[in-house]
Amino acid sequence: MASGRPRPINVKGFRDYFGEEVQVRQEMLDQITSVYRLYGFEPLETPAVESLVALGKFLPDTNRPNEGVFAWEDDGEWMALRYDLTAPLARVAAQFRNSLPSPYRRYAVGTVWRNEKPGPGRFRQFYQCDADTVGAATMAADAEMCRLSCEILEAIGIRRSDYVLKLNSRNLLDGVLIKAGILDPGDEGNLEEVRTTVLRAMDKLDRLGAAGVRDLLGAGRKDESGAFTKGAGLSGGQIDLILAFLTAEKSDCAAMLRHVGDMVSGSAAGCKGLAELDEIMDLLSSQGVSAGQCSVDTSIVRGLGYYTGPIMEAELTAEFTDAKGRRKQFGSVIGGGRYDGLVKRFTGQEVPATGISVGVDRLLAALKEMQTEARASSGPVLVTVMDRDRIVDYQRMVTELRAAGIRSELFLGNARNIGRQLKYADMRNSPLAIIQGTEERDRDVVQIKDLELGKEMAETATHEEWKTRPSQWEVARQELVTEVVRSLRRTE
Amino acid sequence: MASGRPRPINVKGFRDYFGEEVQVRQEMLDQITSVYRLYGFEPLETPAVESLVALGKFLPDTNRPNEGVFAWEDDGEWMALRYDLTAPLARVAAQFRNSLPSPYRRYAVGTVWRNEKPGPGRFRQFYQCDADTVGAATMAADAEMCRLSCEILEAIGIRRSDYVLKLNSRNLLDGVLIKAGILDPGDEGNLEEVRTTVLRAMDKLDRLGAAGVRDLLGAGRKDESGAFTKGAGLSGGQIDLILAFLTAEKSDCAAMLRHVGDMVSGSAAGCKGLAELDEIMDLLSSQGVSAGQCSVDTSIVRGLGYYTGPIMEAELTAEFTDAKGRRKQFGSVIGGGRYDGLVKRFTGQEVPATGISVGVDRLLAALKEMQTEARASSGPVLVTVMDRDRIVDYQRMVTELRAAGIRSELFLGNARNIGRQLKYADMRNSPLAIIQGTEERDRDVVQIKDLELGKEMAETATHEEWKTRPSQWEVARQELVTEVVRSLRRTE
Repeated sequence: MASGRPRPINVKGFRDYFGEEVQVRQEMLDQITSVYRLYGFEPLETPAVESLVALGKFLPDTNRPNEGVFAWEDDGEWMALRYDLTAPLARVAAQFRNSLPSPYRRYAVGTVWRNEKPGPGRFRQFYQCDADTVGAATMAADAEMCRLSCEILEAIGIRRSDYVLKLNSRNLLDGVLIKAGILDPGDEGNLEEVRTTVLRAMDKLDRLGAAGVRDLLGAGRKDESGAFTKGAGLSGGQIDLILAFLTAEKSDCAAMLRHVGDMVSGSAAGCKGLAELDEIMDLLSSQGVSAGQCSVDTSIVRGLGYYTGPIMEAELTAEFTDAKGRRKQFGSVIGGGRYDGLVKRFTGQEVPATGISVGVDRLLAALKEMQTEARASSGPVLVTVMDRDRIVDYQRMVTELRAAGIRSELFLGNARNIGRQLKYADMRNSPLAIIQGTEERDRDVVQIKDLELGKEMAETATHEEWKTRPSQWEVARQELVTEVVRSLRRTE
Repeated sequence: MASGRPRPINVKGFRDYFGEEVQVRQEMLDQITSVYRLYGFEPLETPAVESLVALGKFLPDTNRPNEGVFAWEDDGEWMALRYDLTAPLARVAAQFRNSLPSPYRRYAVGTVWRNEKPGPGRFRQFYQCDADTVGAATMAADAEMCRLSCEILEAIGIRRSDYVLKLNSRNLLDGVLIKAGILDPGDEGNLEEVRTTVLRAMDKLDRLGAAGVRDLLGAGRKDESGAFTKGAGLSGGQIDLILAFLTAEKSDCAAMLRHVGDMVSGSAAGCKGLAELDEIMDLLSSQGVSAGQCSVDTSIVRGLGYYTGPIMEAELTAEFTDAKGRRKQFGSVIGGGRYDGLVKRFTGQEVPATGISVGVDRLLAALKEMQTEARASSGPVLVTVMDRDRIVDYQRMVTELRAAGIRSELFLGNARNIGRQLKYADMRNSPLAIIQGTEERDRDVVQIKDLELGKEMAETATHEEWKTRPSQWEVARQELVTEVVRSLRRTE
C-alpha cells in the first residue's frame, strides 16, 4: 500500500445511500409531510449544529463519550450535532416565543446523529420526521398525535390490521414508582437519577424479558458477553410491584386500567396518568380510532429522558423472516409523547408540548419487506457513441429526447465497442439504447434496442416470438423522438 | 437571570428556516433535481461526517481552525463535517469503483459546513445541489455541465437574458503562470504553494479590483481594517503579465482567445487549456447555446484547490437594489469544473471527473428578489373552540375536513375568547375560520368566516359591498365540508 494515501472508507457507523434508496425514501417522506401539512403543521428546519448546553442530556445511553452526542470545542464554545429534532424545537420555541403563533405546530425532516456503538443495521446518522404542537396543554393535542400516526402509516400503504398504537403515561409510571417507595412525591427532583435507572430497566422488558428486567432493577445483570451492568438496587417487594405493573394483562383494556388503578391508588401522579389515558382513549374513539388500533400498554416507557405525560408508540405487527430464517415483528416505527418541561429549561416558564417522531429508516426497511411489487426500471435512454468524431450528432439526439421530457444521456465513457456500452446501459437500468453507426448515418436511420424486452425474451421467448416482436428495430432519424415516446409508453 | 439555564440561541453563524422558506427551497430543489434526472443522473446521499483525511484540504480559507473545516477527535479518529459534496463523491467513487457503472453520473442535495467567520448573510451551514460525471475524460461531459446549468436556471424561472455562463481552464491559468516563470512545467508539484497563493489573489479581481490583486501578487495588502495579508512576492513583470491576462478584453471571444493564445504560446498546459475551451464552445453552439449565453472569461479562477481543467461559473446579470439603495448584481449562483485528480488521491489511478454545484441559498435569495408575484396564503382552515366541553364535536369537523383533503386544524391553545383564536388564524395565514357557539349548535348550523376577504374588504370595500358579499355566513352543519370546498375554490 502506498503510504500517505487516504483509505476510501466511511467512518464506522456511517453509510452511503444510492439511487433508488434515496428516491424511495424521498417519496415516503413526501407522503408523510403531506399528511403533516394536511393536519396544519408548518415546516421548520433547524441547523445540524447546536450548542451542547442547548441540546441538554436526555439520551438513554450514558456510557458513551459526551453521553451519546458528537460534540467538539471551537473558539471556546462546545457545539454538538443534534441527536433528535425535539431538543432544537424547544430551543426555537424559547428563542422565538414572542413572534411564533401559539400553539406552534411544526413538522421537521432531517438527519440526527448519535455517538453510539455501531452494529449491524445500526447507524450513527439516521433520519427523523417529526410533528409537534408546542403550547397546547389539552389532551386533544396528544390524541391528535395518535390519530396522525395512524393516518401516516395508512398514507404510506400499511394496512390498518398491520399496526397498533400503544399508549402509556409517564405520570402513571411515576405513580407506580411512588407507590413502590422509589420516588418521594414531595421531593421528586432529588431522585431523578434513580428514576432514570429504573425507567431504563423497565424499558428493556421487550429485549431482556421479565428476568432480565428483575436483575437490572435489583443487584445488576451480566450479559452474554460477560459485561456487567449495575442494577438499581431495589428491594424484592419494590421489584415485584414494578413487574406486576409492567406485565399487567392487557387483553381487556378497561379491566387493566382498573387493575393498574388499584396499584397507583392514592398517588396524585398515578391518578393524573390514568385520567390522561382515559381522555385520550375517549377522544380517539370519537374520531373513529378503534380499540384494536389503539390501546394502553403499561410496558411502554420510551427511552428519552424529557417526557412528562402521555407517551406513545406505533408498532408494526406484520411479521417477516430475518436472514437467519426466524420469524420477527418489525416493532416500533413511530414514537412520541408529552414533554412539558423542555422549553422551561430555557425560559423558566412551563410550556406544554407534545409530538411524535417517525423512525424513517426502520419504516423504510419494513415497507421494503412488506411490498412485493417490483418498481419499474427507471434508468435513462442511452444514446451510444459508435463514431467518436460524430459526438455532435449523438449529442443532438440526446438534446431532442430531453426536450421531449425523456430521461436520456450520451455515453460519456471511454469504451469504443458497443458491447461495453450496452453493459453500461444494463447497469443503469436503461429501457432503450439508440445506435447509429456509419452505415445507419448514411441511410439517415437509427437503431432502437429495447433492453428490457431483450432481457425478458432472452429468458423466456420462443424463436417465433423473437421474429414477431424484435427487441431491436430501425426507424428514420427524424422519427427518433416519436418512436422512443411510443416505445416507452408500451413498456410502462 | 437565573443561573444554570441555557440561553435559547443559535450557535454563531447558524440559523433556523421557517414555514414558507423551507417550502420554497424544497420546491426549487425538486425542480433542479428533476432536470438532473432528465439528464440521466442518479441520486447519491453520503453522510455528513467523513474522516478528516478522506475530505482532504482544498478550501480557500486556510487561516481558520482545521483550515475551515469543523473537525473533532473521537475514539482516536479525526472526523469532520463535509465542506462540499465533491470530496465525499471522490471517496465513494474510489470505495465502490468495482460496482458502480462507469461513467458514474450522480446528483446530490445536502447541507455542507464551513468553519468560516460568520458575517451578515454568510452562514456556516448551507445547501449545495450538485451533479457530477466521474469517469468521463471527454469535453462532451464538461459541455453537458454547461448546458445543464442553463437548463436548471431556466427551469426555475430565470430568463435567458438574465444569466451568463463564464468559462475558463485551470490549464490556461497554469500556462500563464509558466510563461511568467512562476511555475516550472517540469516540476509543478514543488510549487503548489505559490500557485495556490497566486490563484487566490487572481480570484479576488471581482472584489478588490486590479490594484488590490496587484498588491496581493506583490508584497501584500492592507485592508480597510488595517489587517495585512502577505503577498505572493512576484516581480513587477510577472504581475503585469498576470494582470494583462486577467483583464483581457472580452467583448470579442475569438479575438480574445487569439490574444490569450499569444500570451501562453509555447506552454503545453496553456495550449491544452485553449483546446479544451475551443472544444467546449463548439459543442455548446451545436446544442443551441449562444455566444451571448456562454463565453470565455479569463478572470474565472474558482476558489477550491482540486480543479485540473475547464472551470465554469453561471452568473445572474439581473440587478437589484440592496438595503442601502445601491444597484447590485446577484453574481455567481452555479460553479464547477473538472477535477481529474480527486479520486486518484485514494486509488493512485487517475479518474477523470467533472461537475457543477448550485449555490442554493444564493439562488433562492435571487429568485425572491426577482419574483414579484405574491404566493397565495396557504394556512390551514381553523376550527375554533367556543365551548370547551364540546371538543369532540369540533374535532369531528376537523376530521371531516381533512378526510376531504382540506388542510385544517382544531385550535389547541388555551384562549377562550374568539378574538384571540382569530388572531391566531391570522398569524397562520388561515383562509377560513369555522365557528359554532351554543346558539349555532342548537340550530345545527356553523358560521364560516372568510379571513382573507375580511382583511381585503376592511381595507377597500364600500358599505354596499359589505352587504352583498359578506365575509361571514352561516351554513347547515352537514353542509360544512361542501361549503368550505366551494369557498376555497372561490378564493384561489
